[in-house]
Amino acid sequence: MILTVTLNAALDVTYGVDSLRPRTSHRVDTTYERAGGKGINVARVLAALGHEAAVTGLAGGPTGGLLRDELRTAGLPDDLVTVAGDSRRTLTVVSRDDGEATVFNQCGPRVSPGEGETFTDHFASLVRGATVVALCGSLPPGLPPDAYAHLIRTAARAGAASVLDTSGPALLGALVAGPDVVKPNAAELAAVTGRADVPAAAAQLRALGARAVVASSGPGGVHAVTPNGAWRAAPPEQLAGNPTGAGDACVAALAAGLATGAPWPDVLRESVALSAAAVPCPVAGDFDAGTYHRFRTAVSVEEVHAAHAH
Amino acid sequence: MILTVTLNAALDVTYGVDSLRPRTSHRVDTTYERAGGKGINVARVLAALGHEAAVTGLAGGPTGGLLRDELRTAGLPDDLVTVAGDSRRTLTVVSRDDGEATVFNQCGPRVSPGEGETFTDHFASLVRGATVVALCGSLPPGLPPDAYAHLIRTAARAGAASVLDTSGPALLGALVAGPDVVKPNAAELAAVTGRADVPAAAAQLRALGARAVVASSGPGGVHAVTPNGAWRAAPPEQLAGNPTGAGDACVAALAAGLATGAPWPDVLRESVALSAAAVPCPVAGDFDAGTYHRFRTAVSVEEVHAAHAH
Repeated sequence: MILTVTLNAALDVTYGVDSLRPRTSHRVDTTYERAGGKGINVARVLAALGHEAAVTGLAGGPTGGLLRDELRTAGLPDDLVTVAGDSRRTLTVVSRDDGEATVFNQCGPRVSPGEGETFTDHFASLVRGATVVALCGSLPPGLPPDAYAHLIRTAARAGAASVLDTSGPALLGALVAGPDVVKPNAAELAAVTGRADVPAAAAQLRALGARAVVASSGPGGVHAVTPNGAWRAAPPEQLAGNPTGAGDACVAALAAGLATGAPWPDVLRESVALSAAAVPCPVAGDFDAGTYHRFRTAVSVEEVHAAHAH
Repeated sequence: MILTVTLNAALDVTYGVDSLRPRTSHRVDTTYERAGGKGINVARVLAALGHEAAVTGLAGGPTGGLLRDELRTAGLPDDLVTVAGDSRRTLTVVSRDDGEATVFNQCGPRVSPGEGETFTDHFASLVRGATVVALCGSLPPGLPPDAYAHLIRTAARAGAASVLDTSGPALLGALVAGPDVVKPNAAELAAVTGRADVPAAAAQLRALGARAVVASSGPGGVHAVTPNGAWRAAPPEQLAGNPTGAGDACVAALAAGLATGAPWPDVLRESVALSAAAVPCPVAGDFDAGTYHRFRTAVSVEEVHAAHAH
């Protein structure tokens, strides 16, 4: 089982409007709601690929109730821990005139130290049944920046590998625990290392404890630096659409690769194909099966022997 | 008791952001939620003025639960009827850089014929304790355009006067029942009559059944055409702020005037003063007590003897 962790789970709401015009009133003619947060999106992709995936993390209040109802409807096992605060919403307003999205992200409720400990205990119990854990997204207010480090160590003691997709202090605070794979995007990688050069920045994260770094560069594909070598993988063509779910699809492929023990070039091929297949879909957690099957044999993977790459 | 009716009650949500920029992501750093819909705002103003005010209408689902919780916190008696659908939200995004508001209005749940009948029965029972009913806002999907006409007739049979604040077919469909006062704004009045001339348009609504028409023109004040004469009332100065709650404050003053039997010039003075006092407040249902007390003696009221005015 692959266990996905979403500490700042959300209800993702999409409003359809004719045209977004600041300082005016809009009639919302379509409303779409589903459970969100990066880990939940990863679990959706894994479930669609036929992997056994479970969802844990923190949720609470009426909004937490709605997102759990939706997980049930979607058939995703809900092992979330209940907190006192109301879960956040993320709102995407989609303008029909230009197809463009404008996003409003609430912060999420403050988590008490007691709630953090309850989650740690719950995670320690769940992870015994997992081969891989995917730790995804921002930390809610109230959790310390080393929250992911504790979870990664607990997973390692239980024999589960870890994939981490977060940014800023939450990413830096986790590295000392030796996550098996971290997946920053190029901007997040540059922000935490101060280096725009991807191989050099990846080497820095590895020096701080990450075993492998897979840096995603949107349509440019991924650059992976691992204990077994370094590779660049790129999609055969660019697709138009919504890139928000591409990172979550990439993490799903990395988690699945760790679970099956596939060689890195195969894992990266899957990562790039799944990321690209998420782009034509309007909501994160979905991917286009036709694009995925077409791309998974067409992604180019090239080994990198640069000085920075090991 | 003044009974306010909000058939399309809402949870009014306000998001604070630094600056609204279409096609980007925003961090929402403040979220404020309260029960809304025009009738609920009217009840808030009435309660703050010391009148006994009750709230009825339709609400349902998790959002309906949240708005009822907030009514309880605000101390407003909740006589809402529960429907199966989830109540709508209205979202106002306020940009801190320019103070401007961008509004997203959901439509509200479809009301079944059975739910409509349950409400009609409930209203018939509540209205026996009311001297005035204020019927406010749009009709939710599923209710016929003559829904307000039925309620106005039921109120009249119980000896309660009626104030109606709605627009379009819901307004036109109510006139035949002889509402005591209708309060369209100038744009709504022009839309239902096809006439931009306020006295002529008001005369037309009276010919269709309204006993009195009080047309509001934002900072221009009100123009009233009644069985006892016609008047124009205007504020002594213009205030900057948020005009969304001014109409609800005006309806509260009209309902209070019907309840106390005050002469029309006094009622109109109160209406304009309360409307103006709502403008400095960021949310509908609030008014600035200092402005109200300053303006209620300073509003100019002028009798109109034009050919159209009777």
